[in-house]
Amino acid sequence: MQIKVIRKILEANDRISEQLKGFFREKKILVLNLMSSPGAGKTTLLEKTLTDLKDEFNMAVIEGDLQTSNDAERIAATGAQVIQINTEGGCHLDGSMVLEATGQMELDNVDVLFVENVGNLVCPAEFSVGEDHKVTILSVVEGDDKPEKYPLIFAESRVMLLNKTDLLPYVDFSMEKASNFARSLNSDMVIYPVSAKTRDGMDSWYDWLRKEVRHKKKG
Amino acid sequence: MQIKVIRKILEANDRISEQLKGFFREKKILVLNLMSSPGAGKTTLLEKTLTDLKDEFNMAVIEGDLQTSNDAERIAATGAQVIQINTEGGCHLDGSMVLEATGQMELDNVDVLFVENVGNLVCPAEFSVGEDHKVTILSVVEGDDKPEKYPLIFAESRVMLLNKTDLLPYVDFSMEKASNFARSLNSDMVIYPVSAKTRDGMDSWYDWLRKEVRHKKKG
Repeated sequence: MQIKVIRKILEANDRISEQLKGFFREKKILVLNLMSSPGAGKTTLLEKTLTDLKDEFNMAVIEGDLQTSNDAERIAATGAQVIQINTEGGCHLDGSMVLEATGQMELDNVDVLFVENVGNLVCPAEFSVGEDHKVTILSVVEGDDKPEKYPLIFAESRVMLLNKTDLLPYVDFSMEKASNFARSLNSDMVIYPVSAKTRDGMDSWYDWLRKEVRHKKKG
Repeated sequence: MQIKVIRKILEANDRISEQLKGFFREKKILVLNLMSSPGAGKTTLLEKTLTDLKDEFNMAVIEGDLQTSNDAERIAATGAQVIQINTEGGCHLDGSMVLEATGQMELDNVDVLFVENVGNLVCPAEFSVGEDHKVTILSVVEGDDKPEKYPLIFAESRVMLLNKTDLLPYVDFSMEKASNFARSLNSDMVIYPVSAKTRDGMDSWYDWLRKEVRHKKKG
């Protein structure tokens, strides 16, 4: 019974997600759904990306948080268009929230829309928000066992960014173990070790973004 | 409509949680519900606690994870009684899962039962599992803004352990900011900075545990 209710919610979300996909395809906007645990560095990664690529692309952000507009304020400081969704306790963004947010944004000349999901390695993976790709950020401080322990989010993600590599000397983390398990779930996964803080490794992520924007423009 | 369904699930959980509380009171078992983001160090903290206090208390553990029994194996290596619950994608433990687990454990002479919840800073806070206290572990690497961004879990917790203090020199984290905001949600909160890895600060946590066990025994 409980499962049936949850399935109905997921089916309703899938329909809205398809509408969003149609809208984003028409506008030729690359949409990335950024997911991670709390504190893995999603907002810092976005701040650097928005700053470093601001002359190349027109980028916009939808920020998802339970409470506060702290993250949206950090994003706005980069000059990017941003809108904050407060889920008021909800553990993930869903299609209807993103649909409502897009209605309040100016998206005509936007090349990339980043959706920064609620910090949570479980629930956001189940709800598509019309994105082209899910991108999961795993901080190396969280441990190399996370792909094995939270498989759905890694199986669903096109990209895994292994963030906070500046802290690698101080923690036990095997890049190989984390990468191998993630690829066992998802053989096509693109994996980049990065430090958003020091910008180490960010160029590979930017090159991937450039390629995906070109691909989306071609339709 | 959706809210009604969720409320019904919560009400059903509350009834089971009350049954569990009655059972644990009768057995004089102190029950602590450990919650955190993925990778904040719950299992390491438990490993150290179980090892360091094994001559003082009889301790048992219920491990909650989406998948794998990796954590239960780490706990079993300390010699403590442990049972693993796999939620198969579920983002939190609930009362019925813990009720079923307790039915398979030998709890007659147990002083402390630790319930290690699924790594998630949102959903576990809503589901009581009959615990005396919720204990939230926040790794300093996650950032000092987390109590503000995930208020429910901090408002509900009796204790906040600020873990991984060995990494403080390498990250921007204000103990004062995190503590002040947590206390603004919950003025009675007990806060201990610890490094489960180096054992720095663990004695204060152990003293708190000893006090709570004595209190529970008195009934």
